Formats: sequence, C-alpha cells, structure tokens
Amino acid sequence: MTEPLHPPFRTIYWDGGLDGTLVLLDQRRLPAEVRFLPCRTVEDVMEAIRTLAVRGAPAIGIAAAFGICLGLSQVNPVSVPQALTTVEDSAARLAASRPTAVNLFWALEQMRKAALQFAQQNSSSNVQDLRRHLLNQAQTILQQDIDTCRAIGQNGQSLIPEGAGILTHCNAGALAAAGIGTALAILYTARHFSRQFRVYVDETRPLLQGARLTAWELKQFGIQPTLICDNMAASLMKAGKIHAVLVGADRIAANGDTANKIGTLGLSILASHFQIPFYVAAPTSTFDLSIPSGQFIPIEHRSPDEVFSFSKQQIAPRDIAGYNPAFDVTEAERICAIVTEKGVLHPPLPKAIEELRKKG
Amino acid sequence: MTEPLHPPFRTIYWDGGLDGTLVLLDQRRLPAEVRFLPCRTVEDVMEAIRTLAVRGAPAIGIAAAFGICLGLSQVNPVSVPQALTTVEDSAARLAASRPTAVNLFWALEQMRKAALQFAQQNSSSNVQDLRRHLLNQAQTILQQDIDTCRAIGQNGQSLIPEGAGILTHCNAGALAAAGIGTALAILYTARHFSRQFRVYVDETRPLLQGARLTAWELKQFGIQPTLICDNMAASLMKAGKIHAVLVGADRIAANGDTANKIGTLGLSILASHFQIPFYVAAPTSTFDLSIPSGQFIPIEHRSPDEVFSFSKQQIAPRDIAGYNPAFDVTEAERICAIVTEKGVLHPPLPKAIEELRKKG
Repeated sequence: MTEPLHPPFRTIYWDGGLDGTLVLLDQRRLPAEVRFLPCRTVEDVMEAIRTLAVRGAPAIGIAAAFGICLGLSQVNPVSVPQALTTVEDSAARLAASRPTAVNLFWALEQMRKAALQFAQQNSSSNVQDLRRHLLNQAQTILQQDIDTCRAIGQNGQSLIPEGAGILTHCNAGALAAAGIGTALAILYTARHFSRQFRVYVDETRPLLQGARLTAWELKQFGIQPTLICDNMAASLMKAGKIHAVLVGADRIAANGDTANKIGTLGLSILASHFQIPFYVAAPTSTFDLSIPSGQFIPIEHRSPDEVFSFSKQQIAPRDIAGYNPAFDVTEAERICAIVTEKGVLHPPLPKAIEELRKKG
Repeated sequence: MTEPLHPPFRTIYWDGGLDGTLVLLDQRRLPAEVRFLPCRTVEDVMEAIRTLAVRGAPAIGIAAAFGICLGLSQVNPVSVPQALTTVEDSAARLAASRPTAVNLFWALEQMRKAALQFAQQNSSSNVQDLRRHLLNQAQTILQQDIDTCRAIGQNGQSLIPEGAGILTHCNAGALAAAGIGTALAILYTARHFSRQFRVYVDETRPLLQGARLTAWELKQFGIQPTLICDNMAASLMKAGKIHAVLVGADRIAANGDTANKIGTLGLSILASHFQIPFYVAAPTSTFDLSIPSGQFIPIEHRSPDEVFSFSKQQIAPRDIAGYNPAFDVTEAERICAIVTEKGVLHPPLPKAIEELRKKG
C-alpha cells in the first residue's frame, strides 16, 4: 500500500471559522441525490441526528461535538461561566437525540471535559479562547476518526480471504464516519491490497441503509455490490456463497455483547448455524465499559410508520400495529472477532476487552 | 364452532358457463385497491401467474385448472382429439409460468387425466360434453380447496396456545387459496374457537406479501396484525414474544424438506435457535413424492429489479448486481409438524409422509 486510503466524498465537515457551519452529506436523499445539509444551530444538529440525515455511530459523535460549537455560536455567551453553562445545556439536548449509539455520549463527554479543563487551567482566558479550544477539540475528534478508520481497515484486512463472499448489513462505511468507515474500511483496505472478493449487501429495512447507502458508497470506492433483501441471507449462506459476515456496532458492552442495526442478531445466529465467521468492526469509543452486558443497552424504538411505508408511500393497510426497534443485541459468544483501531480482539471477548481497558 | 368459516372475500372464481371468465382478486393492487382481474385466455392466466396477480400454491393450481377451460374456449376445437391436443398444449404452457409450487403441476395433471379418461370412457361424447366435464373438474378442484383449507384449520388449530404470539411469513391465507388458506386457516379456526393470540406478520421482501396481503387479509377476518420487517424476527423471538412460527409451503419433498417463500429457511433456523416450534401448513397436493429431498426442488429466480425497488420506487443506485431467489428450502429436521387436510404429520417426517402415501 503506497498511499493512505481516502473516502471519495465528504460525509461531515466544518466549514469556516469560529462562527462556521457544520456540513453533512444528507443521507436521507441518497442515492437519488447528493446534497449537503448545512447545520447552524444545536436544533439543526438534533434534527439531523433524529431524522438520520447523519447516522452511523462515529458520525453521530462527530456531529454532536460540532453541535457544541454551534450552541456557543448561537448563544454568544459573555463570560466563561455562561459558556460552560451553554456547553452543558447543548450537551444535554444533543444527548437526547438518539439513545443507543454510545459514541454520541462519548463525544459529548470529550467536549464537556475539554471545556471544563480549559476553563480551570486558563483562568484568565476569555470566551473566544474557550470557543477556539472547543472547535479544535471537535476537529481533533473528526481527525482521530479518520485515523481510527484507517487503523481498523489495516487491522482487519487480513480477515478477508482472497475470493471470499462477504455479507454486510446496514452501513458501517465512510457514510457512517469522517474516515473510510469501520466494517467497510476493512473491505476497502483489502481491496487496496488487490485482494478480490464479492460483497453482498443486506438492504436493511426499514430505512434501507444497505440499498441506499452501502451500495452507493461501495460503488464510489470502485467495488461492485450485490444487493439482497435481508431475508435472503440464509439462502446465500446455505449456497456456500458467504465466507464472512462483517458489521459495525453502535455500542459494545464490557462482556462483548454488541448492539447494532436491527437484523444483526439474526445474521449472527445464521452465521453460527452455517459455521461462517461473524466479525464486528468498531472504534474503541463504541465500547461502554459501564455496562456489564447487552441486556442493559437501551434500544431505540422508532415510529412504526417506518415499517408501514417507504419514502412516504404506504405499503400496508392503515390501522394495524407495528414494531420497530432500530437495533438488536448480538451476544458476544457468536462474535469471532472485534476489530478496533488498537488491534483485533479475539474470544473470550470479556477477557480481551478487560485487557484493552487495562492498557488504556 | 357452530357454522363453517368462510373467507370474507373471493380470491378466485369462475363467472359464467362454458364460455365464462376466470376472475381473480388482483393481488398486485392490494391493499390500496380491491380490484378484480378477468382472465379470458390462457395467456391472461399465464400473465396473472407470472406477475403475481394470483399467487400462493393452491390458488395458482386452481387458476391453471381454469386456464385449461379458457384454452378450450379460445380454440373452440371441432373434435374430441383436437380438444385433447388443446388441453395438452395449454397445460404445457401454463406449467411453464412458474417453476416452484408443485400444486400448479398437480392441478394441470388432474385436468389432463380428467380429459383423457373422459374421452376414453365416453367414445361417443362430443366436444361440449368434454368441456363441460373439464369445467366441472376445475370447479371440483376449487371446491376441494375450500374443504381442504377448512380441514387444515381444524387439524391445526390446537397448535395455537391461548395468549400466544404467532409469527407468519408471506401469505398463506385466503388470498393464496379458494378457501380460508393454509397457515392462516389455522389462526382463523383458533380464533373461531375464541382463542386469543397475537399475530406478527413478516413484511416479506421483495414483494411485500406480508405487509400488503397478509396484514390486509387478517383485518378482513377481524384479526389485528402487528407488522414487522423480516429482519426483526430474531429480536422478537429473543424478547420472548413468539411462541410458534407458522408458514405455508410451495413444495414438500418426500423427506419433508419444504420449499416456501424466501426467508422461511432463516426463520426456521432462528426458531430452532430460540426453541420455538416451527410449523408448516399445506394441502397434500403440495407434496412432491417424486423428489427425495429439498435439494432437487427447482427454485425460481426472479428479476433483481424486485430487490432494487420498493413498491415500484427505485431504492438502490443503478448498475449494481442483485440476487433474487423467490423461495428457499427448509430442512425437515427443523419442522415440528406439517398440518394437512388429512391430519398432522409429526417427526420423523420422512416416515410420516411415507405412511400418508400408503394410505393414499
């Protein structure tokens, strides 16, 4: 590999200086339209997160970090204590936008800590200094994500055998991050090493992140995807066409239990049945060591309208009931490896995660 | 149960006498529109089968049987030998419309045999007599289906425990038959006995037979469905909400391996993982004893455009690959019972099916 891999598009970036704008590639419109969404307020960011204009655990965290900067632009506090209150207030509101992906809370915590530390260590600083420091901090979180994605790709690429069929679910790619993604970074890096393999993409109902986002993104990276409906995975596995399942994560408990997009649990059970390795890729910011196991991970339930309709077109009769959990939890014992920027964790995962924690 | 259960709508019927019309409830338009599709030619019936205006193993068989009558109306043969040739020709063409559901071939075989036997036994009969006989034969197949559905409902209803959560896939109901259906007949009969339970319906991508048809049909029968995306089944099972999975069948091999709508195989593996009973309901005309096991069942692959679009709306980028098998095969060892009109078959299924065959 001669030069580092870059995403061929920008998912999230900051445009301008202290009073700049957060710009998001609007994922509600893909693949029909590539349009950028400017966010100028905390409310804009909350709305973008809630409506999935920005989604994917790392990208949500980055968006929230810049949301703190936008909150300060809006309020324009006159003192450092008022600025700290504004940060706390924005953080609390942004934290309420989606409950499952822990990267959101992790990034907000980084920003809160940075604000408090800066204020404590620079008692004579003014509000502008603090704002500049926080914008730098958000940019650092974004830059770290780029590095993290690249390291995940490097660390995981050897898991993809030459000639393999790889199944992925939802979108754990460059559209879910600032860098080249998590699960998909592994594929991009393997391809960068000239490895040949076939990528099957679950369409991922109800919001079709696989069909709309992953298929689009793979094409941008020069990989031809094969799209399937979620319920076709077992048939493909039985036909011997899948050699590994590779997904991202929204939150990983201390024992390795992993919350990810609805449908991941079922895939892990099918993979286990067909003796196909099941891999998770995630930055270490996705680990929530305060949670002993997956049963304590809060699962977001979204409106059943997402099940009843697609793109505003009603597909089911009216006045029926629906069920729409956005995530499910895969038990650690069916996960063959978790690929992080710090290395690959192998079973037993609780022990591997504990060792990772000790190393810090 | 005081009076027999009837479907609250007609899926398939013959309108008129010898030169009548086959009328189908057009399932491409449900649930938005309840519209009937008149078929006046063999081509009309083939097109209706191919485009899924009529679908479901029993209904396809019935439609094909009446298709033979329509072929005779079209050609208006002048002699009995010419009429027999017309029957053979129509049967061959209708048989080519869809490959997996064996009921199609079974019904065509019934019609072919009826024509030959009648001609042999009534050497002085004229073409009109033969046509009248064949129309009666098609009506008999339809009437037998009504009786069969009712018997399946009676035989299977005790499998539904009070207070249970039942998951079904695709549509194996009155929209797939002339009677009250197969898998859903069991639910209707249990409800007729005042049993209370909850029905979860897989939306069943790509063509959404669950969302569009089963949800609509359950409402017509007074049962409130809960619609889920196919990839949510594992989450529901893990949450303890599913106590049985109940599906129909398109072809059952001599060893009990069962072809059914894509996604059924995955459900059976999930059910087995969560120790939830997995039941199949089908008329005995769905058994194909000439086939020793599921690996020999031909699986229809349909256009990937069905995967790329959602209710006619393009959802994926253009120029990607797709995979769209319409069916998959569930191995007999994960099927806890097959409910037929002749009784309930219990494992070991190869033995139970052999005994059924001996009884004739």
